[in-house]
Amino acid sequence: MSYPDKLVSAVSKNNSRIVIGLDPDLTKLPSFILKYNSPVTEFNRLIVECTSDIAAGYKLNMAFYEYLMKQGIDAVRETLEVIPGNLITICDAKRGDIDNTAGMYAKTYFEIYGFDAITLSPYMGQDSVMPFLGSENKFVYLLALTSNKSSGDFQMLKTGSHYLYENVIEKSISWSDYKNLGYVFGANHTEEIRKFAGSYPEVPLLIPGIGAQANDLKRLMNSLGSNNNFIINSSRNIIYSFEKNCSEKEFVDSVRNSAKKLKEEINSMIVSV
Amino acid sequence: MSYPDKLVSAVSKNNSRIVIGLDPDLTKLPSFILKYNSPVTEFNRLIVECTSDIAAGYKLNMAFYEYLMKQGIDAVRETLEVIPGNLITICDAKRGDIDNTAGMYAKTYFEIYGFDAITLSPYMGQDSVMPFLGSENKFVYLLALTSNKSSGDFQMLKTGSHYLYENVIEKSISWSDYKNLGYVFGANHTEEIRKFAGSYPEVPLLIPGIGAQANDLKRLMNSLGSNNNFIINSSRNIIYSFEKNCSEKEFVDSVRNSAKKLKEEINSMIVSV
Repeated sequence: MSYPDKLVSAVSKNNSRIVIGLDPDLTKLPSFILKYNSPVTEFNRLIVECTSDIAAGYKLNMAFYEYLMKQGIDAVRETLEVIPGNLITICDAKRGDIDNTAGMYAKTYFEIYGFDAITLSPYMGQDSVMPFLGSENKFVYLLALTSNKSSGDFQMLKTGSHYLYENVIEKSISWSDYKNLGYVFGANHTEEIRKFAGSYPEVPLLIPGIGAQANDLKRLMNSLGSNNNFIINSSRNIIYSFEKNCSEKEFVDSVRNSAKKLKEEINSMIVSV
Repeated sequence: MSYPDKLVSAVSKNNSRIVIGLDPDLTKLPSFILKYNSPVTEFNRLIVECTSDIAAGYKLNMAFYEYLMKQGIDAVRETLEVIPGNLITICDAKRGDIDNTAGMYAKTYFEIYGFDAITLSPYMGQDSVMPFLGSENKFVYLLALTSNKSSGDFQMLKTGSHYLYENVIEKSISWSDYKNLGYVFGANHTEEIRKFAGSYPEVPLLIPGIGAQANDLKRLMNSLGSNNNFIINSSRNIIYSFEKNCSEKEFVDSVRNSAKKLKEEINSMIVSV
């Protein structure tokens, strides 16, 4: 199945636009989890099991796993094993390198680990992205306009009549003949999302960085009106929603409820066009 | 010791500007090495041992190690252990992510692995780079103008009166008060290197992508005239210079001679200013 088809089916299965960011930080895990031999795997497994009827998929930020060295490699593999096959899995790696190196990364994250999608940085241009576009079952979310404070340093520089991020989109949009390339937009950039969504209603968007305020989410949802392939990532507000000394049941309830609440908030705000 | 001081001392110790890229590709290793339990570590160890009086340091491209999963983690750690402490070690990772994620990468590559320097991509701006600039003993080589064919897609877009890569340099040059940030320029961009080297003679440069022709090297060396902190990376021409069925002695001789030849070619072309 192509990634866009899998995305549509995952969104529809759980009637959900949320992707849960599994970014395990050892200092923030609940105390009870430390009794397990592989606390990170156990943490992720519990989250996946209690949200797999709520989320469209999961995003794993590689920085958190690389920090754990070999334990991190096990945790990624074991987590991917417990995620149901009909939900999407995104490797948040933001790689970008020359073609033979890019090919090694593609093999590692798509073939060995088996992720459905990966985030990439566009700075090095087309040949750094092409090795990831070889299979329609795999997908690239290219950084367009990110949510961090310094995103404007370069992404919002004017290049001719366009901003750099617009130039990135304009050049890259056809690299895969509209088959397996989409974009990352930070949730705070609602005007830019509105513009993109109006021009490219079918192109998948991955949106991290939703704020704590319902207002922000409302603005975001309004801006997404025309796009029907967006997913919204939430990490800390879901996976660290519990008290550190909670019981396993309290942990599961808290994670599940946070995920459910976000899913329902989003669904209540979806703008039909 | 600050990284710039370590760099000067490593260059002077072996009178060498070359950094050897340790990019182990299992399909290209010499046959004899496969008898070892850890062929990649053994491959790197033999290369380091026969070139540590020739090179200023070593650059490890993470893609090749990530592909090897846990064996790759061991290989990185074991390789860093055999590299003499007075030579420089560069983690070629081209990371770039929001600040807390960047902090995880910095901890992983600088503190756990212990690399001296890392390559980063500038697309996400200042706050994605700052977490790597906390210690003067560590160093960032930020991508400016890369050697790949598509480097011009975005890096050479005009942003006002400057190219994007020039804007990257102009904005980032003072992020560390000139203490621990330098740039990556592909060896083919000799005119741009000349311009940079003239403006910033002290700022460290990492230059990959030298071609097979002596002419290319001559042009590069001429362009570097004013910069006294450059290093030139060579990978495949040194570490895959042998016949696949060579003996261990032939392997060592071939690697050593290729490294020595390049070092001497470069030294013979260094332009005094």
